[in-house]
Amino acid sequence: MGTVYRGVAASDGVAVAKAWLVAPSEPSVERVEVADPQAEWARVERAIAAAKEELAALRQTALDKLGEAEAQLFVAHAQMLDDPELTGQIRQAIEAERVNAEWAVKSVIDTLVGLFDALDDEYMRQRAADVRDVGSRLLRHLQGGGGASLADLAEPVVLVARDLAPSDTVQLDPAFVRAFVTDIGGRTSHTAIMARSLGIPAVVGLGDITAHVASGQVLAVDGSEGLVVVEPNEEELARFSAQVERQQGERSRLAALRDAESVTLDGRRVEIAGNIGTPAEVAQVLAQGGEGIGLFRSEFLYMNRDTAPTEEEQFAAYKEVAEAMALRPVIVRTLDVGGDKGIPYLGLPHEDNPFLGYRAIRVCLDQKELFAAQLRAILRASHYGKLRVMFPMIATVEEVRAAKRELEAAKQALREEGVPFDEDIEVGIMIEIPAAAVVADRLAREVDFFSIGTNDLVQYTLACDRLNERISHLYQPLNPSVLRLVKMVIDGAHAEGKWVGMCGELAGDPRATAILLGLGLDEFSMSAGSILKVRDVVRNTRYEDAKALAARALEADTEADVLRLVEGLRS
Amino acid sequence: MGTVYRGVAASDGVAVAKAWLVAPSEPSVERVEVADPQAEWARVERAIAAAKEELAALRQTALDKLGEAEAQLFVAHAQMLDDPELTGQIRQAIEAERVNAEWAVKSVIDTLVGLFDALDDEYMRQRAADVRDVGSRLLRHLQGGGGASLADLAEPVVLVARDLAPSDTVQLDPAFVRAFVTDIGGRTSHTAIMARSLGIPAVVGLGDITAHVASGQVLAVDGSEGLVVVEPNEEELARFSAQVERQQGERSRLAALRDAESVTLDGRRVEIAGNIGTPAEVAQVLAQGGEGIGLFRSEFLYMNRDTAPTEEEQFAAYKEVAEAMALRPVIVRTLDVGGDKGIPYLGLPHEDNPFLGYRAIRVCLDQKELFAAQLRAILRASHYGKLRVMFPMIATVEEVRAAKRELEAAKQALREEGVPFDEDIEVGIMIEIPAAAVVADRLAREVDFFSIGTNDLVQYTLACDRLNERISHLYQPLNPSVLRLVKMVIDGAHAEGKWVGMCGELAGDPRATAILLGLGLDEFSMSAGSILKVRDVVRNTRYEDAKALAARALEADTEADVLRLVEGLRS
Repeated sequence: MGTVYRGVAASDGVAVAKAWLVAPSEPSVERVEVADPQAEWARVERAIAAAKEELAALRQTALDKLGEAEAQLFVAHAQMLDDPELTGQIRQAIEAERVNAEWAVKSVIDTLVGLFDALDDEYMRQRAADVRDVGSRLLRHLQGGGGASLADLAEPVVLVARDLAPSDTVQLDPAFVRAFVTDIGGRTSHTAIMARSLGIPAVVGLGDITAHVASGQVLAVDGSEGLVVVEPNEEELARFSAQVERQQGERSRLAALRDAESVTLDGRRVEIAGNIGTPAEVAQVLAQGGEGIGLFRSEFLYMNRDTAPTEEEQFAAYKEVAEAMALRPVIVRTLDVGGDKGIPYLGLPHEDNPFLGYRAIRVCLDQKELFAAQLRAILRASHYGKLRVMFPMIATVEEVRAAKRELEAAKQALREEGVPFDEDIEVGIMIEIPAAAVVADRLAREVDFFSIGTNDLVQYTLACDRLNERISHLYQPLNPSVLRLVKMVIDGAHAEGKWVGMCGELAGDPRATAILLGLGLDEFSMSAGSILKVRDVVRNTRYEDAKALAARALEADTEADVLRLVEGLRS
Repeated sequence: MGTVYRGVAASDGVAVAKAWLVAPSEPSVERVEVADPQAEWARVERAIAAAKEELAALRQTALDKLGEAEAQLFVAHAQMLDDPELTGQIRQAIEAERVNAEWAVKSVIDTLVGLFDALDDEYMRQRAADVRDVGSRLLRHLQGGGGASLADLAEPVVLVARDLAPSDTVQLDPAFVRAFVTDIGGRTSHTAIMARSLGIPAVVGLGDITAHVASGQVLAVDGSEGLVVVEPNEEELARFSAQVERQQGERSRLAALRDAESVTLDGRRVEIAGNIGTPAEVAQVLAQGGEGIGLFRSEFLYMNRDTAPTEEEQFAAYKEVAEAMALRPVIVRTLDVGGDKGIPYLGLPHEDNPFLGYRAIRVCLDQKELFAAQLRAILRASHYGKLRVMFPMIATVEEVRAAKRELEAAKQALREEGVPFDEDIEVGIMIEIPAAAVVADRLAREVDFFSIGTNDLVQYTLACDRLNERISHLYQPLNPSVLRLVKMVIDGAHAEGKWVGMCGELAGDPRATAILLGLGLDEFSMSAGSILKVRDVVRNTRYEDAKALAARALEADTEADVLRLVEGLRS
């Protein structure tokens, strides 16, 4: 029998494949006196250039595959290599001590890391880790090493690591990675989020699995149960293989629903749409049978560059999506940035609580030229398809009115210029702040539709940073308080004859589908990978049952009680 | 005519007095070669010791006068002086270069500040400011300088400064400071908050008033209108003096309400209580006619020390307050700490969004021994007066149940030990998280009372850090969304026969009193200075009018609309 390890179930699914151990390499460095310090400094300059090139590539890959937050890390690392304070110290060490470049780099980095570490502050320790990372990259280039080899995978493997860093995950080819297995991390750690977004099974927080597994050993992984079996015996292998097969069978069954209607057993029709971050992702939404784009995040246009995108660049991107979706609706969300998603040229301040800070519409209503360029681009693109515009992070009625005034000004300018756009473009807002949910009846008079952003709504409603593992038990999307707010939003909108969508993670969670149906949600928008699963639930639910379920969930005491109700309906 | 300057109205009231310019002193330092480096290092050691003593005194003063957050800053500064990395570098500079202590300190500090500044991150720049502050203090002691002289004020003055730092405000004697006037800052800046809590008029954000005023010039300040008149002429002086007189007359009129009932014109009785942070503050609450203590913050017991307070220490403090209040009720809130109020020995992590993090009851339910000691101390003290216990930061029904289990265990242990306590002690929770407000009907079944914490409730409801000046326009305590949540809380509690208090700043805001009365609030708890003003409003309001006002406020679109309704009632 194989040895069984239990960890945190971080991403659903089962897999069987050979282990591939990801070992963090710490280059060793010796002190050598040199005759020509200038030549050593030249070597450092070349290594910096190579490292920056590598970081730029990683940044681009991260942007394409993962998103802006991950990409931003590589920008920060590249900035460190541009810091004259740092490079000056390295140069001085080489020249003063006449030592080799490796030694100079290592001592300067070690001193800096020591300084940060000594400050006894978790934030500083994270900066120390960044500095260490940059130092290792520089050393690797000085020693002529190329990039790490995860990109070279050629057969299916289970990645085994202490933890997976963004620079690891960004390079890997999902086609060859069957599962992630790590020593540390929880359900909301980077690795877990990454695994779910790539649809790869994962078990994290296993303690010291890296000490017990060698590359090449066969692993069976159950990401739903949090189990890892090392060298499974024949019986175990048979069991896991059967599960893998069922998993594939289920995928085929769902694939058949691609062109099916999203309608309940008793005839209630809803729309199931996809969330995208770049125009390239439209294809995947269509391949999974998405009926529209319920959330087109526009941040990708603004990241990874030194100045704001021009109106033309934006127009091209919005038009591309509008045309690709033909007459299916596309909701473009205006810029949603803030302290946690930095964009250097916007001059955003560091904040103590970025999630409660200067973000999204709050920035756009201040930086009117930036906002006007985006609104013009969206309006112009609306001539080529069925675009809708949506404002994020609305907290008050005044903000909606102010945003609409900017939109109206942009329309008026285009009219005067004779530029065509959809005069009837629908205008909506994200409901992701509790205040907006509570006064939804008032906000509904101002707009054509709402889209509920549950990720933020849950974290504000429960005062719980969704990325903070220490309190992840309080991040409860199905808490009765959240459901009651969702009901207020839907009732408030319907009373004014407006429709309501949802584009947070909850919309793509099949456990929530029946309740959301029962609360009266009109549109569900999610990552492409969830579309068919949710459609399947919709098609197997009676609307009347869903309404009864929702009514009971609203009266539940706890999220655990709600989950029991859902299980009851399913079994 | 005097010159008139307009700034931000930061704290109400008028004042006329001579200006006292607070100039930040930057000591100048020259490089001197020394014969005896050891003697120089010994000077540094003495200066460090003196600086640490001074910081400890400032810390204590801050704790007594201002609160834990301000006190914490001085702890951090003292820790820097203990950092061997920093002191080692100073020592090395003295010994390697054989230079005077001042020069060594200055160059090490300058380098460190340069490093932080170069990192291009606002957080780092704040750390740089801390390092600079610590460096200046050290230099002042090396140069034999004593503390700054704000503590030496002997006549009434208006303080004029670029900005007031905690180390300035902590030393001043409120008896001699008639007003604050500063170049920078907004309504939520440190200076503004400080001024309001001390009841001192303040105008901030004046631009460059420090360049236009000399010490000794007469200033007339109107903190309600945000006006400063430099060298007022006779007519202006007469007008301001009349206002000062009216202000004093109003104070006398209110003082007469000290023993009056808190009852509306048509007979609705409420309780008006005081918030305190230490037992010493009880006297002030009683002097202002407080009918109880609606919030006794217990954090002071935990701050400014290396280990948790013992059960005995806590018992003594709670008993002191219980006895001082005799049979008037005292609500003790259990420990409310978190990322923003650090307590080193609790091992709390640095967090990206401390307001959405591991705080208060979330910590106590994890650190059960810490929690048990506090609960035992509160229960034992309940034998000596009318204590109530209250849990902060409740988000879910499970948390209340878990906290009550701990309380029940503490009771059971005391029963077995034969220690007396109030078997009928009332148990309540803070409602300061939107989730709790939305499910108040469920939470009401679990407890005897609620106390609404509006400071946090407003910031979570509107997703707006109340300390972030950039978005202070969104911090709206009278936003209809907040009022609707307050209504849900009160209705939910009353339906179960429970009572509801409020201990956030809104409870002490006379503009809100009528609406809160109309919503059915049973108890108002506030800083002592507001008690008489709120009682005055209560006694001049008809409950029936208040109910009608509240009903209209709930249907308003914006906070501005609510304020217009309130003004309408007053005029």
